[in-house]
Amino acid sequence: MKLVSYEENGKPRFGAVVAGMVVDLARASEACHNDDPKIAVLPRRIEDFFDRIEDLSGSLKAVVARFETSADAPNPEFCQPLAGVKLLPPISRPPKTICVARNYAEHAKEAGLEISPIPILFARFSKTFVAAGAPVVVPTVSKDLDWEGELAVIIGKNSNGQRISKDEAMDYVFGYSIFNDVTVRDYQFRVTQYTAGKNFRGSGPFGPMIVTADEIIDPHKLDIKTTLNGEVMQFANTATMIYDIPTILENIAEFIDLEAGDVIPTGTPAGVGFKRKPPIYLKHGDRITVEIPGVGVLSNPVIDEGKN
Amino acid sequence: MKLVSYEENGKPRFGAVVAGMVVDLARASEACHNDDPKIAVLPRRIEDFFDRIEDLSGSLKAVVARFETSADAPNPEFCQPLAGVKLLPPISRPPKTICVARNYAEHAKEAGLEISPIPILFARFSKTFVAAGAPVVVPTVSKDLDWEGELAVIIGKNSNGQRISKDEAMDYVFGYSIFNDVTVRDYQFRVTQYTAGKNFRGSGPFGPMIVTADEIIDPHKLDIKTTLNGEVMQFANTATMIYDIPTILENIAEFIDLEAGDVIPTGTPAGVGFKRKPPIYLKHGDRITVEIPGVGVLSNPVIDEGKN
Repeated sequence: MKLVSYEENGKPRFGAVVAGMVVDLARASEACHNDDPKIAVLPRRIEDFFDRIEDLSGSLKAVVARFETSADAPNPEFCQPLAGVKLLPPISRPPKTICVARNYAEHAKEAGLEISPIPILFARFSKTFVAAGAPVVVPTVSKDLDWEGELAVIIGKNSNGQRISKDEAMDYVFGYSIFNDVTVRDYQFRVTQYTAGKNFRGSGPFGPMIVTADEIIDPHKLDIKTTLNGEVMQFANTATMIYDIPTILENIAEFIDLEAGDVIPTGTPAGVGFKRKPPIYLKHGDRITVEIPGVGVLSNPVIDEGKN
Repeated sequence: MKLVSYEENGKPRFGAVVAGMVVDLARASEACHNDDPKIAVLPRRIEDFFDRIEDLSGSLKAVVARFETSADAPNPEFCQPLAGVKLLPPISRPPKTICVARNYAEHAKEAGLEISPIPILFARFSKTFVAAGAPVVVPTVSKDLDWEGELAVIIGKNSNGQRISKDEAMDYVFGYSIFNDVTVRDYQFRVTQYTAGKNFRGSGPFGPMIVTADEIIDPHKLDIKTTLNGEVMQFANTATMIYDIPTILENIAEFIDLEAGDVIPTGTPAGVGFKRKPPIYLKHGDRITVEIPGVGVLSNPVIDEGKN
């Protein structure tokens, strides 16, 4: 399944992408429920789906299956072309977003930072999220705005107070998306903690969609490519992650519960801008694009703060 | 006003404390609305109140004022003794929680860390929150569990894309509470980022209530005291903060929007356990209590992980 969040009349909605159309899951599930009361009516917002994922995931699959296998024309009451919707970040308010630093050796090397034996984790606040197509913002207070294309893991199961082993970690993965962990470099390094540099307004492109885990044969064999105005800046394969996804999840669940809807950007490969000679930073008029085949294309224009 | 969140039939509710009673604000406001339709019906959860604070704060004040000034016996339909309710963290899911490190010179000194010219900020995830009276957990993976009593600022106004000046910062403060930023010290310092050490399960006592800003004459003249099993471990006055509240808020709003419901623990004074000779850590059977006169008493037992 491919899931999107989008805006309709100023409110967030949650849909499945089927053959280029977005199926509104609240409305479609209501119609399905009328046929088959065992199919639950799905909520309007993806956050509410994740809050009740144990009860609702069967219904989600059933609703999407009807549309995937149906030869009928899409029902205009709850289907519309994907190209016409205003996307939102796939999850606007995840329970938490935990990012992994230095997860590709060549990136740690270019940044002049050591590889850590333990994953280095930091938080991103959801207020920084930017939908696919929406602008990344160059703040007035710094020009050192740099890209970081990343595979994001979306959690689909609560760990309920338990640590988890690597062997069971993949059971907690709901799906994948793309995160561009855009960073204000001078703010990142001016104090010990990355919080400010990693949480500027308009600095967190996330999307365009969530692709469920069953559609990704091996998340550790994905090409990831970042282009700036069409020129390739980062190109790597997730096979070269230092900490694979089970290791990251085991490590997080050592201290805190995984919760359905959590977003885990898994770190960026080499090729960021700030250590290039000369450095390259994002500037007004640029377009920054992260692509992971099978997961999607996350493309965003760049604007100066205060311009629209 | 004094506001609490509490549990009833397994669900969160939001109440005002008046003369030792908790007034259920959803139910009480419904009764008030029947008398005076200009008073809006308040939501069941405080998170939903903060989401619509601009529309609802007048109604909240009006409802609470009726109970504060009424000589009537408390209505048992929506009032119950505070002592009988199961408290929750005042806000279980704030938009974000941004903590301030090293905000008291004597604490930075005892920790062997430098005072920073810029506030050092880190994130706490709400999944770690512990209500007043609920247990703090000593994890199996570390015994280095240390207290940090702190004044917490609760934000009541969205900054909507704008930076804010120190002069206007206090307009963004809704009220105050207490946070015990319990830390697993070895995890805090084993990598550069504090994320794991500051986010263990059962490590974030928060409460017992929110006291609105109008009841605190000067938040920079509050005694703050932490006791371990009745013995004073930390005692300071918020006057000795390095970065006062306007400075903290100006600094945060430089990079990210303040949102109604945000929680900002403002840092801990000297007297934590890990640099004592010998060190003192929290252990099963302890009771750790943080008190700020006028704001409340936040007291929690300590238990080993897996025990109840």
